[in-house]
Amino acid sequence: MEPASIMRRIAVDAMGTDAAPGPEVEGAILAVRERLAEVVLVGPQDVLGRELGRREARGLDIEVVHASEAVTMSEAAAKAFRRKRDSSLRVAARLVREGKADGFISAGNTGAVMATAKITLGALEGVERPALAAVFPTSKGTASVLLDVGANADCSPANLEQFAVMGEIYYRAIFGVKRPRVGLLSIGQEAHKGNDLARQTHLRLKKLPLNFIGNVEGRDLYNGRVDVTVADGFTGNVVLKASEGVAEVLSGILRDALSSTLSAKVGYVLARKALRDFKKRADYSEYGGAPLLGVRGVCIICHGRSNANAIKNAIRVAAEFAAGCVNEKIQRELAGASWGRT
Amino acid sequence: MEPASIMRRIAVDAMGTDAAPGPEVEGAILAVRERLAEVVLVGPQDVLGRELGRREARGLDIEVVHASEAVTMSEAAAKAFRRKRDSSLRVAARLVREGKADGFISAGNTGAVMATAKITLGALEGVERPALAAVFPTSKGTASVLLDVGANADCSPANLEQFAVMGEIYYRAIFGVKRPRVGLLSIGQEAHKGNDLARQTHLRLKKLPLNFIGNVEGRDLYNGRVDVTVADGFTGNVVLKASEGVAEVLSGILRDALSSTLSAKVGYVLARKALRDFKKRADYSEYGGAPLLGVRGVCIICHGRSNANAIKNAIRVAAEFAAGCVNEKIQRELAGASWGRT
Repeated sequence: MEPASIMRRIAVDAMGTDAAPGPEVEGAILAVRERLAEVVLVGPQDVLGRELGRREARGLDIEVVHASEAVTMSEAAAKAFRRKRDSSLRVAARLVREGKADGFISAGNTGAVMATAKITLGALEGVERPALAAVFPTSKGTASVLLDVGANADCSPANLEQFAVMGEIYYRAIFGVKRPRVGLLSIGQEAHKGNDLARQTHLRLKKLPLNFIGNVEGRDLYNGRVDVTVADGFTGNVVLKASEGVAEVLSGILRDALSSTLSAKVGYVLARKALRDFKKRADYSEYGGAPLLGVRGVCIICHGRSNANAIKNAIRVAAEFAAGCVNEKIQRELAGASWGRT
Repeated sequence: MEPASIMRRIAVDAMGTDAAPGPEVEGAILAVRERLAEVVLVGPQDVLGRELGRREARGLDIEVVHASEAVTMSEAAAKAFRRKRDSSLRVAARLVREGKADGFISAGNTGAVMATAKITLGALEGVERPALAAVFPTSKGTASVLLDVGANADCSPANLEQFAVMGEIYYRAIFGVKRPRVGLLSIGQEAHKGNDLARQTHLRLKKLPLNFIGNVEGRDLYNGRVDVTVADGFTGNVVLKASEGVAEVLSGILRDALSSTLSAKVGYVLARKALRDFKKRADYSEYGGAPLLGVRGVCIICHGRSNANAIKNAIRVAAEFAAGCVNEKIQRELAGASWGRT
């Protein structure tokens, strides 16, 4: 990974989170204070000015670009794009297209962010389908990247092959691992196990100059056996949401178990601390959102429930994405040029 | 559900679990003591005789049928079937085909059990593809059934339609719910969301006389919003294994958090109790294994790590499956007869 010697400029859709614009404004301030990037906050000028003023952000390098509308969570993606020409989301994407920002982040409606990024920025040369990559922690403390998690419900083996290449380049740039382990999500480790798509994809991945470790199973996403896992967007999205569901249910059971058995004050305090540690280690916000790989620009999509820390980390990741020349490498690889991999 | 007034006779492959035959023998004794079923234990006569003798099972209605071989976890399914004609698995399935048992259970290699059941028993009339159904608890305390979880990696909309019918009949029979909520696993609740398979299946399910609640997402499997969820076997299997992976990782994190922060003896004891409660509520063994739906007979597949309680519950479920005339109802429904649903 190159050092981010030049400060990158990241546009932040300030109206994306459920609690907008608080987390966005606070996350932007944190990012600028830690010199992770320059930030452009996009949203209603008066509201953002007030929020910045309240947080004593004077003197920080935060620009505000006005956008009069916001896309809501319930809006259909395509409709939101067409109807709201002056949405904070669309203005943020436009800043990237016009070269006024090196990348943008949004915690808004994932479908709308993807559609806006794809239409406004377009795909990189050689990329058939951009893919959304989820990043989460494993029990070994490593990061696990799964793609696609929802940009493409139906995929061809050639699509999955491109996802492998893009995911691997991203992992190298952001996590500084030289030869990340790439796996294909399937239902058994043997090459012949899986559906038609997986079997055909396996044959293609074997031929790539990647550290392809073969098929991996659902549990491998979390146990540190693999770094980059490739799946069609339907399977990837279902797996991601099921995983969140299990985590929510288990947290609830745990909370009940602790609160019903620990009546003594000491027990309650100890349990609170354990729960906090538990939440902290399982906290996805450290990873700063999901990159949309393959578009002409940098786009990081955050969870609607992102807090300021998650926004800050997404800004950091967007800056590292730009500094790591991820897109240049993807394009070089997939446009089939002969000067090979770096 | 009919009362199990006639005692059903269930064959138990005694060589399936990782700790075989201990859990099988003990589970059989529990089941017979609780008058859940008559049991036929299948495996090496001398070993099983010794195990039964040690547990003072004299006088209990447990028959032993000899089988000289056992299928191992690492054997390929088809090969295991062909080569080991006298395996405990194959002998147990044969007892069902010959009418000497009403059903069989096995905690062996899932692929081998499915292959053996499909070849030995055959499919029910009208059933294109048997499907494996996983059963697990939700945060609301209800049971959630997901099928297929691995019998068919590639599925057609017509296959998924049959899975919905079979799963619904099973749920009614085993859980006594009159109109179970049936959902289609997809990546958004709207009918148009999903891959081609999901969209086409949605249109078919809407026309069935089922309580179809539409598309459901991964997290709904665990939050009690749906009773029977339909998916292709690739997606179903990946989701199931990812869920197990998340649960394992979170349990580990929790164990670490509690052991590192609770140094006082009181804390340790309280934490132990909380962890036990937590494990108990998340314990899948209460649900007694996964039924293979659509074969001519009753076949319940248990986890290789099943304990005696899980084996006992699988025997109970197999007996209820037979008593509930699940197969007769499936056949009536799918063979397209006109006397309709009961």
